[in-house]
Order: sequence, then structure tokens, then C-alpha cells
Amino acid sequence: MREVYVVGAGQSDFGAFPDESYRSLFATAFEAALDSVDGELDRTAIDEAFIGTLGVGGRQLGLSGPSVTEYVGLHGTSCTRVENACAAGGAALRQAVGSIRAGMADVALAGGVEIMTDMSGDRTRYWLGVSGETEWERMAGTTFAGVYAQMADAHMAEHGTTREQLSRVAVKNHANGAKNPHAHLRFECSLDDAVNGTAVAAPLNLYDCCPTSDGASAVLLASRAVAEGLTDDPVQVTGSGQASGRVGLFQRPSLTSVPATKAAARQAYDDAGVGPADIDFAEVHDCFSIAELIAYEDLGFCETGEAGAYVESGATDPDGERPVNLSGGLKSKGHPIGATGTGQTVEVFKQLRGEAGDRQVAGLERGLTHNVGGSGGAVAVHVYEGGWA
Amino acid sequence: MREVYVVGAGQSDFGAFPDESYRSLFATAFEAALDSVDGELDRTAIDEAFIGTLGVGGRQLGLSGPSVTEYVGLHGTSCTRVENACAAGGAALRQAVGSIRAGMADVALAGGVEIMTDMSGDRTRYWLGVSGETEWERMAGTTFAGVYAQMADAHMAEHGTTREQLSRVAVKNHANGAKNPHAHLRFECSLDDAVNGTAVAAPLNLYDCCPTSDGASAVLLASRAVAEGLTDDPVQVTGSGQASGRVGLFQRPSLTSVPATKAAARQAYDDAGVGPADIDFAEVHDCFSIAELIAYEDLGFCETGEAGAYVESGATDPDGERPVNLSGGLKSKGHPIGATGTGQTVEVFKQLRGEAGDRQVAGLERGLTHNVGGSGGAVAVHVYEGGWA
Repeated sequence: MREVYVVGAGQSDFGAFPDESYRSLFATAFEAALDSVDGELDRTAIDEAFIGTLGVGGRQLGLSGPSVTEYVGLHGTSCTRVENACAAGGAALRQAVGSIRAGMADVALAGGVEIMTDMSGDRTRYWLGVSGETEWERMAGTTFAGVYAQMADAHMAEHGTTREQLSRVAVKNHANGAKNPHAHLRFECSLDDAVNGTAVAAPLNLYDCCPTSDGASAVLLASRAVAEGLTDDPVQVTGSGQASGRVGLFQRPSLTSVPATKAAARQAYDDAGVGPADIDFAEVHDCFSIAELIAYEDLGFCETGEAGAYVESGATDPDGERPVNLSGGLKSKGHPIGATGTGQTVEVFKQLRGEAGDRQVAGLERGLTHNVGGSGGAVAVHVYEGGWA
Repeated sequence: MREVYVVGAGQSDFGAFPDESYRSLFATAFEAALDSVDGELDRTAIDEAFIGTLGVGGRQLGLSGPSVTEYVGLHGTSCTRVENACAAGGAALRQAVGSIRAGMADVALAGGVEIMTDMSGDRTRYWLGVSGETEWERMAGTTFAGVYAQMADAHMAEHGTTREQLSRVAVKNHANGAKNPHAHLRFECSLDDAVNGTAVAAPLNLYDCCPTSDGASAVLLASRAVAEGLTDDPVQVTGSGQASGRVGLFQRPSLTSVPATKAAARQAYDDAGVGPADIDFAEVHDCFSIAELIAYEDLGFCETGEAGAYVESGATDPDGERPVNLSGGLKSKGHPIGATGTGQTVEVFKQLRGEAGDRQVAGLERGLTHNVGGSGGAVAVHVYEGGWA
């Protein structure tokens, strides 16, 4: 199997940008990725591109992948749009990894883009709702926050997870995101703020929920032969896993675990030849605070039911045993649906190369990204390692 | 590189089915594909699935891939939705081929589904329009038929292509489709009918345009090791090519050629180690009659400008040198967007195995599928060969 390396990664700011288009945002991310390559990589060297976007808004709906890559001068390059709701970016990354492994590309682009803030409140709820199960969840009136609220409620009842433990996720991720110049909500919050936020869907409050963001991200992948010609500081994608699960939460055996995360993680760990204990740091899908806690358990970072105590122990703080969401996560950095998955890769790339500025953690060797579609209908997990294999 | 074989392929009827859902239609196609496998293939053996759908209607918009595969008992199987407008199915097929070549799957599913007839006329025009360029074509009032009408007009002006030659495409494809039990418009038409059809977008009339269809298709792919355990009558995918082009027709250097078809075909031919002269038969993307003629030229079946004479010569009739659209093509078989690409593979699979019933052509050894998104913003081309490599 051919080795696959990340040779460049970049993103736009995440936030609300009424003067930008989905094309201009993607161009910003793409040029940043190209600029981050150590050597000279001409864009015409890209053999194949994969763009993750949900794109239910009023813009290009068909050919929404090629319509952004043509804007950055890649109109001759094959582009495929992939959509797995909020895991669209992770799925795009997996396709790009597969394309290089299969020998169908030597250089591949994976990226994502979303414009979400041009809709009013009702439309935004619709936007997010489409990633829930349509017939029996959304049409019955369940919001996306409502789905995760059920998971939080159940986790508190089954495992004694506390209000403060949920809020610890928000405090940690805002503290990290405050150091990230690309973050949407670039401010710290206190535990008191986070515990007493305005109710959204009980038990979740405003500080338990990620924002609605515009943004784009892009990752350049290459075969070993190409990567060797470009850099002395490589980041290898050693493991790729993806799994699906019941789209509707109500059809799953448990409200407190996401089977697709477990399955995707097992695949990615096996692919990389490692286990959870080998992961130094991770970017996990914290669309809601409870999602990060459940991810700890499903990824094997702690035992089932102990995620609340785990975050409270400081284990996932920047100076803990396994920092999580050093970028600020979806909570603070933002969550422009299709751009989120490859945005996670941007952070891992920077941390493994020592380029993460004020939020750099020393000594990191192996990272993981975890990207969830819907409430667990599709999950992509990737493992990365600094240096040549 | 690992060899990839089609071990099963099936489709639903294409047509208007007000009593079906996108899920039930896909289930029909999937079960037909599973039933077509010579040996016993358990659905749990499928490692990864790719579903092509445009899906701009009122149903599941996020996670639209996993939402159909879970319905056929594959909720534990990774599924990724791919969308490249009308080439979504071809792109799904390419991802499945890549997954097996990369060693990420031993058995992969590629399929597609679309429900289009539940919308009224205005909405249907919108539906198709979204595959055109949004900002400068669709918003300016250009319909999808209008885009292809410009190509037809230019081909007639540049190359002397006649009204009768355009209509020969419709006559041939309806004659073929009349023999296909799954076809949407299962009737023959005379040259006189086709020449005198009601105007749609001059010079294109009703007989130059494919219908708006509901339908689904599914293809099961396997590594050689798995395929050897299942069948003595294999169909290999020997070549895969995909390319993008300017989404807007107005941004391309010529109105009478599709650069993405040329690039995808070159890739697929190189991948298979063949040239156009080696292709015995093909399913090409005849969303409009002119599209089939331009495809002949771009795929290298005839010289530039000679497609009108080529179809008139009978070369692409069932008893000609290179039969095209034995299934009836999009024109007669129907065009349920996401289902079209893998639907083409169903016909090639059947013809190469001698299972095409009344429309079987004897002695076919190598086939090609050509699936176009929009007016050429993305194109997938695949080459197939009967027997073991």
C-alpha cells in the first residue's frame, strides 16, 4: 500500500463573512494550503480533488465541488463533491487518501467549504436539521440541539455526568480557541459563564453548542515519492477509518455511545497499527459539549461512563496527558459544516510540525481527527504521525 | 494495482413512481444487484458503499447516502454520498473502484437513486437547472435544455450536422429502449415523429430531450480474490477516468466539444491500455440528442465534426460496428440523475455476460460507460472487459 503524506494544509478564518462567497472563502483556504508547502508545488500537479460541502443554501447545488475548484484554477482537475453531512470533510479526506493509495493520484486535494450565516434563524435551524433523520426526527419537530440534548440527558442519568463536567468542555475549548487567529468565537469563558448559559435544549445551554459559521479548509496530500521532493518535515496519514450508523438516534441501541465512531476508530487504529493509548492529541467533533465527552469514550481515550471525570481531571487540557481540540474545536473555532473535517487536519498538521503558534504543545508525535455526520450516521477517523514511516 | 470486478448489477424500473420512496427504489435496485451475483454474496461482506444522488428535493439532504443504505440492512457499513450532478453515479463507481484498488475494501457497492417526478413543472426545471452554472447561467434564465440547444446550434453551424441526424439518435435509442423492460419511455418512434416533435429549446424538440425519471441502480464490485469465489463469468473494470471542466458552458473554448470527456476518456483508455478502436460498445450520456453526437467525437469513436454522418451510417445501431446505448440510453431508458451512471454499468454487465434478453448483441468483449455532470463540468468514463485479466 502506498504511503500518504500531508504536505500542506490551510484554512480561512471561520466566522460570519457577509462579503465573501463560497468560492472566495475556498480560495483563501486553498492558497493558504499551497503556501504552507515547504517546497514548490504547482497547482497543476494536483491529480484529483474532493470537496466536502452540505450546501443546501441558495447557491450552486449540482457540481458544487467542481464549481469551487475551478475558481482556484483547477478547472482541468477532476473534482468530486462528497457529502456526509457534518462529516463531509472527513469523507473527502478519506477519498483523497484512497486515491493516492490506489495509485489513481500522486497529489490529491481534500477540502471543504460552507456558507451558513446568510440565512435567518429559521433557515439556520433548517440547515442543521437536514443532517438529522428527516422522516421521523426532523419532520416530528426535533431540532439538532434536541437530538444531542437527549444524548446529554441520558449520559447524565446513566453515568452521573454533571452540568459542570459538560461545561468544562466549553471552558477548555474556548481557552484554546482564544489563541487561534482563525477561530470564530475567539474569547475565553469561565466555568460560571458556561454553567449558566441561556437554555437552548435542556440540558444543553448556549455554551454547550457550537456556532453557525462560514469557512473553508484545504489539505494537500501526496505520495511518498512526491512528498520527499517537497519537505523534510512530513506528516503521514497512517490510518483511515470510516463507518456509518443509523441516521436516526432513535434507532440506535444506546443514546450514550455512537457505534460509527467505535467502528471508524477501530478501522483507523488497525490501519495505523496503533491503539488509543498511542494517540498524543486529537481534534474531536464537539458540535455539542456532550459529543466531545461521548467521543472520549468511543475513541477509547477513557472508560465508558468516565468521560466527565476525564475532562474534569484536566487530561485533555493543553498540559494534560492527551490534549483535545487545541484548535478550539467546533465550539470556539467554529463549525462551517463541510469545512470542519479537513479543518481538523489543518490543526494536526500544524501541531505535528511545531507551527501552531501560541497554542503549540511540545513533543506531540501522533494525532487523530474525528469527524461526525449528523448525530452519528457517518463518522470518519484519521491517524497522523510526524516524520517518515 | 489490485484488479476490480463487477460481480453483480441491478436496477429498478426507471419511470414515474408516486408510490415509491427514494429508499424503496434503492432497495429494489440493491436486491436485484445482489440476486444477480452468481455465487452467494452476503450483504455483510460489503466493506464500503458510495451513493450518487443530487437530491435537491424535500427529502433527506444531509447523510443522504447512509440514509438509503441503512434501509437495505447496511447501517453498519461505511457509506459516502457523492454528488457530481448527473455524473454522481459515475463518480460513485470511481470511488468504489478506488477503494478496492487501495485495499480499503474487498467488496464495495456503488449505486445511485433519484426521485424527480414528485415536483411540478417549474420545480423540475429548477431541479435540472441546478446542474448548470448558477450565477451566470441559471440566474440569467438559461434552462438546461437551453444550454444544450446552444451546443446543438453550434454543431449544426460548424459541422453541417442536420435536423435528421439529431433525430437519428432518438430513433435508435427508442428502438433499443423499447426492448428494455426497465425503460421509462418504452416505445419506438419514427424519424418523422422525432423530426417534428414539439419545440423545447430550438433547435431541440421533445424527442431530443430525455425524460425526468425516478429510479435507482446498484453495482457490486469485488477484488479478484473475492470475485474468483463467486463467478466463472467475470466482468473486469479495466479503466477508470474522471475529469472536470468549466461548469459554465460560456467559459469553455468551444461549444461543440466537452474537454472533460476527452480528458476522462484519455485517462480511462490509458488505465485500461486500450484506445477507442478497441471499444465494442458503449453507454453514453445522451441527456439530449446532441450530447450523444458530441460524445462520439470526444470519445474518439469518429472524427471531429463527423458524428452526424456516423450515427446516420448505422455504425451505432445494434448491428453496427459499435452499438451505443443498447439500454435505450437516457433518452428512452430514462434519467434519474444519481442513478444514471451506475445504471449504465448495469447494461454493460448484462451485455458482457449475455444476459441482456431481447436487446442482447452477440460477441461483445469490451464496453465503455460515459457519464456527464451538467453540460460537462464533470465526466466519468469507465472501460470494462469480460473474462479474467
